[in-house]
Amino acid sequence: METTIRYPKDDPWRISEATFDPRFLGKYETIFALGNGYLGARAATEERYVGEKRDTFIAGTFDRFDRDEVTELPNIPDVFAVTVILDGQQLDLNQGEVSEYDRTLNVKTGELTRSFLWTYAGKQYRFQSSRFVSFKQRHVLAERISITPVAANANIRLTAGIDGQMTNNGTQHFNDDVKRLYPGQVLQLSAKTDQSEIYFVLTSEHRFSTEGVTMGKTKTEMLRRQLMSTYTADIEAGHPFVFTNITNVYTSRDIDVIYKDRSSLQAQGLETAEALKPFSYETLQKESAQAWADKIWDAMPITIDADESRDALAINFARYHLAVMTPAHDPRMNIGAKGLSGEGYKGHTFWDTEIFMLPYYIFTYPEVAKKLETYRFLSLGGARRKASDNGYHGAQYPWESAWIDDGESTPVWGATDIVTGKATKIWSGFIEQHITADVAYGINEYIQATGDQEFAETMGHEVILDTARFWASRLDWNEDKRQYEILDVIGPDEYKEHANNNAFTNHMAKWNMQLGLDLIKKLRDTAPAEYTRLDDRLNLDQLEQEVSEKIDKLYLPEPNANDVIPQDDDYLSKKLIDLAPYTVNGKVGSLFDHFNLDQVDQMQVTKQADVILLLFLFEKHFSKDVKLKNWEYYEPKTTHDSSLSLLTHTIFAADLGDKKMAYDFYQRARDIDMGPNMSSSDEGIHAASIGGIWSMTVFGFGGVRYLDGNLRIVPNLPDAWHELSFQIWWHQQKLAITETHDALKIKNLTGTADIQLDSVGGSYTVSGHDELVIKLA
Amino acid sequence: METTIRYPKDDPWRISEATFDPRFLGKYETIFALGNGYLGARAATEERYVGEKRDTFIAGTFDRFDRDEVTELPNIPDVFAVTVILDGQQLDLNQGEVSEYDRTLNVKTGELTRSFLWTYAGKQYRFQSSRFVSFKQRHVLAERISITPVAANANIRLTAGIDGQMTNNGTQHFNDDVKRLYPGQVLQLSAKTDQSEIYFVLTSEHRFSTEGVTMGKTKTEMLRRQLMSTYTADIEAGHPFVFTNITNVYTSRDIDVIYKDRSSLQAQGLETAEALKPFSYETLQKESAQAWADKIWDAMPITIDADESRDALAINFARYHLAVMTPAHDPRMNIGAKGLSGEGYKGHTFWDTEIFMLPYYIFTYPEVAKKLETYRFLSLGGARRKASDNGYHGAQYPWESAWIDDGESTPVWGATDIVTGKATKIWSGFIEQHITADVAYGINEYIQATGDQEFAETMGHEVILDTARFWASRLDWNEDKRQYEILDVIGPDEYKEHANNNAFTNHMAKWNMQLGLDLIKKLRDTAPAEYTRLDDRLNLDQLEQEVSEKIDKLYLPEPNANDVIPQDDDYLSKKLIDLAPYTVNGKVGSLFDHFNLDQVDQMQVTKQADVILLLFLFEKHFSKDVKLKNWEYYEPKTTHDSSLSLLTHTIFAADLGDKKMAYDFYQRARDIDMGPNMSSSDEGIHAASIGGIWSMTVFGFGGVRYLDGNLRIVPNLPDAWHELSFQIWWHQQKLAITETHDALKIKNLTGTADIQLDSVGGSYTVSGHDELVIKLA
Repeated sequence: METTIRYPKDDPWRISEATFDPRFLGKYETIFALGNGYLGARAATEERYVGEKRDTFIAGTFDRFDRDEVTELPNIPDVFAVTVILDGQQLDLNQGEVSEYDRTLNVKTGELTRSFLWTYAGKQYRFQSSRFVSFKQRHVLAERISITPVAANANIRLTAGIDGQMTNNGTQHFNDDVKRLYPGQVLQLSAKTDQSEIYFVLTSEHRFSTEGVTMGKTKTEMLRRQLMSTYTADIEAGHPFVFTNITNVYTSRDIDVIYKDRSSLQAQGLETAEALKPFSYETLQKESAQAWADKIWDAMPITIDADESRDALAINFARYHLAVMTPAHDPRMNIGAKGLSGEGYKGHTFWDTEIFMLPYYIFTYPEVAKKLETYRFLSLGGARRKASDNGYHGAQYPWESAWIDDGESTPVWGATDIVTGKATKIWSGFIEQHITADVAYGINEYIQATGDQEFAETMGHEVILDTARFWASRLDWNEDKRQYEILDVIGPDEYKEHANNNAFTNHMAKWNMQLGLDLIKKLRDTAPAEYTRLDDRLNLDQLEQEVSEKIDKLYLPEPNANDVIPQDDDYLSKKLIDLAPYTVNGKVGSLFDHFNLDQVDQMQVTKQADVILLLFLFEKHFSKDVKLKNWEYYEPKTTHDSSLSLLTHTIFAADLGDKKMAYDFYQRARDIDMGPNMSSSDEGIHAASIGGIWSMTVFGFGGVRYLDGNLRIVPNLPDAWHELSFQIWWHQQKLAITETHDALKIKNLTGTADIQLDSVGGSYTVSGHDELVIKLA
Repeated sequence: METTIRYPKDDPWRISEATFDPRFLGKYETIFALGNGYLGARAATEERYVGEKRDTFIAGTFDRFDRDEVTELPNIPDVFAVTVILDGQQLDLNQGEVSEYDRTLNVKTGELTRSFLWTYAGKQYRFQSSRFVSFKQRHVLAERISITPVAANANIRLTAGIDGQMTNNGTQHFNDDVKRLYPGQVLQLSAKTDQSEIYFVLTSEHRFSTEGVTMGKTKTEMLRRQLMSTYTADIEAGHPFVFTNITNVYTSRDIDVIYKDRSSLQAQGLETAEALKPFSYETLQKESAQAWADKIWDAMPITIDADESRDALAINFARYHLAVMTPAHDPRMNIGAKGLSGEGYKGHTFWDTEIFMLPYYIFTYPEVAKKLETYRFLSLGGARRKASDNGYHGAQYPWESAWIDDGESTPVWGATDIVTGKATKIWSGFIEQHITADVAYGINEYIQATGDQEFAETMGHEVILDTARFWASRLDWNEDKRQYEILDVIGPDEYKEHANNNAFTNHMAKWNMQLGLDLIKKLRDTAPAEYTRLDDRLNLDQLEQEVSEKIDKLYLPEPNANDVIPQDDDYLSKKLIDLAPYTVNGKVGSLFDHFNLDQVDQMQVTKQADVILLLFLFEKHFSKDVKLKNWEYYEPKTTHDSSLSLLTHTIFAADLGDKKMAYDFYQRARDIDMGPNMSSSDEGIHAASIGGIWSMTVFGFGGVRYLDGNLRIVPNLPDAWHELSFQIWWHQQKLAITETHDALKIKNLTGTADIQLDSVGGSYTVSGHDELVIKLA
């Protein structure tokens, strides 16, 4: 596989682009993306290239282009691009000669640096740039570009500014609003989204070095949606021309901004620019790096001692990107399926949050997990509207979720059907209904793991109850079989678009209904005040009666004579097909070049973990033998065409005790974004897969699990790992855990409560600040 | 001056780009633009580059992005761009080596061709492309690309399709509508403008050569606003891989389409694609070239025998672009200030039509001139609304005009004010009021030159009368001087933004009022039926009374003691400034880098012909001495910062008998687009200047003039010209005129009426088919 990616030896914090290749712009724009959960910026190069995707997003600022499109995160004006003309020639790495090229993301400091030597027409120029999005001051981003003519004086012409001609693949969300140039080269551009009417104000201060540099003419132009300044200078040989751009961004949706009208935002932007003037790029970068250490690396350390430093890099890379993509500051927002690093999935939130990312937050930053699930509570209005629009009761969560009020945000039309020539209808927004149970699952996990009663009482319980109500209203009665069924759904395996009794969906629905029933009973018995309050709002008697009546009559697909759980009513009778001809590098990629979805629907082919995911989430409900038999049946039929698939298979293989297979799957999953495949990340980072790097590490190899409120830790370290050390929060106690092949050590760093857990050899209690050591070998 | 433009020797039909230079994309995109008056396409290269402006427009399909922006011609989906990957390397002329490069526009056939040899990684590929927009079938455009691996077999991967991710500098006008792939690689994409709700349907058929080519996998993708097919093939050494793309476009605004709903347009597109299938690229190109000959070159030939073939090329180049930019098929549209070749001025129509382009059409294609002025009649509604909105009566024409119903379409905000840092307000839409008289002037010229009574009676007279009414209501009474004045206007010299009694405006206004008065009298005396009909509509008695009362009291700036006509009340008392420091290559370019508009307003500096234009349009009203004195006064103060300036100065200098100066000005004006300046045409062609090439030729050097209904021909050939031969229509007779330094020959090719004209030595009559020869030397 042709690749330009490099992993500096023995360095678990850096990832590099070793040579510039214009074919691979998208890869690095995504994996080198910067951000702080509020603001995310793809790492487009300073100079522009055909095919670049120069995206910057601010979480939660959704806008809809027209009524036929769904809402999406708009690509805001860019401040990173520059045009550099050196001695009359525009800097373009496709021309001249490039040597000593390096671009490196340091995930520890959140800084992206780039350097190279450019030779053109016999003259050499040393280029160095660095940039970051502040992790300390969320509205601030900065860029510094240094250009040194090596041996002869040079003339430079540099154009930089605020460029609102950006689009989302041709979709323009902003009006052409006010631009203004202030003394001291402070540029300010305002823009307003068209439909959602959110104001954005970007303010940039441009600074220049003076030693060996003679500045010439400056010209500022106000073009359409653009405010650009062009600077000229003569540079003495050996002296760097240094351009620094300190930018701040505010929007009328910001939770930390009080006055949200345009002129207040403009004043705020100017004020911030003024306040930043005394601080150098280095100072601001250091302060940001310190925030990374304080909030992430030192606060909740995870270390992996392994044969290859790439595994340790993977967990750091994953945690970096989780911090970059997660709007931890604002419960009205959630994580997009591509984070803030690309236009894929339009910034929308899926079940990925609850099933694949929430575990990291529950165990590492429970206060962030709380915000992510508060978002679901705040979205109840849209969920209730969706249920009602579809003729159901309670709360039916949208498959794709954007702003809390938006409700269902899944687009209706997708890729070409190669047989009919028409666009394919996307059914997920209509019938991929397991999301509603997934939300309840996530909320329950959060409550169980944290014991956060305040959240449960004010938000979580209401979601659990009204999702249970949805399922009760959703069931289809089968008069012949005298049972309830769930017909015409899409399960996690999206190749099967109109499945009946999808095992995952039915099991999750029943579990959700049972959770509601149990909660009603528990509240009536133990929390009469809350019971009364919720009964007033939600009519719990009626709910209990309806759910009770139906729950036992709901059909659940159970293991058949061969111990295989049928994925749905028809799957096991469909055509068997050999996937080998469609497999390249161990990945099925070309199936849809040969078949359309209707044809794939008729085959025993699965996109991603479906029954396997069910067995993972409800591991206690199924025997090891059933797990093994289903693994043997479904894994060879799975294309892993979704980035959500491999991580579950990794953990499942680890649970089954197959360390080699688990590590093989881990490596494939780890490499979805970070690996050498240069084309897989163009649309943005795979958020769930990034969350999965933590899950594979802590759940899969670390063997941590929380089941029905109980903590279990049974290490499964692969042979290539020598020690895994991490910290987790459990019931408001912070635990430090170290695992080797020989021993498991657990210490309660908080030490204010006893911790019960299951592990090899039985149940244990960790008391106070004691360290518990369990021998494994 | 660094340039890559070439004029093939002794060839008055071709203009070439000699080497590829990515700095000059915009120049060639504009001057090589293709079109047929319905559809115009900038000549972006087949492969994409940073900085390209890939525009395609359809005349009259205006859309407004939001209520704060003015309406503009939307950039429709592109069909010319391809991505070509040869043996794994993307074709990009910034990489590898390029030799034998040539791109040539043949203005005679309307075909653009390009060829080069590309060497990459030791392999050579011969690239040839050609394209045209059909001049025969206005909905059709075609492109052919041929790639031949010179010495070794090669693999190609070519992506082409319909790309609706185009924007107007970031402004998206279209929704993401239906895409569809039909058998035989017929691609169809529909799109609808957001505000004006105009449907566009583009249908492309892709064809491939088969000899020496083994086609591989084809993949069609429906992306956002995109329908793209990727083709792969193995090519034998020495064999061309030929890709042909035959596209047709329809819109719901098309005058020749009856059923304008989306599905009818889609059916029409498919039907046209089907009908075009039997025809090769060559056949369609030949048919288009024949239409160019039939409608332009053979129908109304103009030849120049000069020292340099570049002067003959200039008139052909100008007539080519006039045909490309003029929507001669539809009177609901007019010519944009940048034609259909760029986003500059948003496709809007200015006074340029009447003053600088209409003369060509009146004398060469009077039926087109009629459509251009019919547009003004159809726009009366908006003009009356504008008058009423401003508190005036009658019809006040918009400074910038778009769709006939739109009314005033001038944007309100322009470039940065370098002193305040704010955007500059554009006052033209409010107070550049001479446009209303300019429209009346054009209509009167058309009627005088053609004698088209049907147009006069049904349309022209109404415009003349209601513009006269506007002026009567517009005048400002000066009680001190007991006279009417016109205060607070912008004249042609747009440096003076709030001028009082601008000479051009006052003279034009008075002339317009007098024209109305004369018309009322004439109608009453000679056309009682029309008089009654118009009186019923427009209350002619009241109009006559009001205009009569005011017209004699309107102050007209007359020559002062030095024979200088004051440009306005204050001009002659403003500061004198030496323009030399701001002059580069004979052109004042950098004035606004040093002063803002308020400062320039205080100087005796003029942007473009203002008093000089007045003297040209009303040459009979002023003595030769006055003309000379004003020339000597104003010319040195004129920056010619508008492309509308030099051409008037050329004709004026020719009239004054200064052949050398006239030819110098001519060369500068001729070269505004066609010349070696690589940056002047980025925003699109200078339509008025292009019209001026004909005016300088036929009016300036040919000495043709029509004054108060009389034809005059007094040749002024420059020394470098040996013979000028052209044809004109005059009073429905087609005249063939040949001029040398010795003689003027006139023959009436129609010969159905006698023609009176003035020339050297007195008045002449041309009878029947006789040739009149007048000796000059």
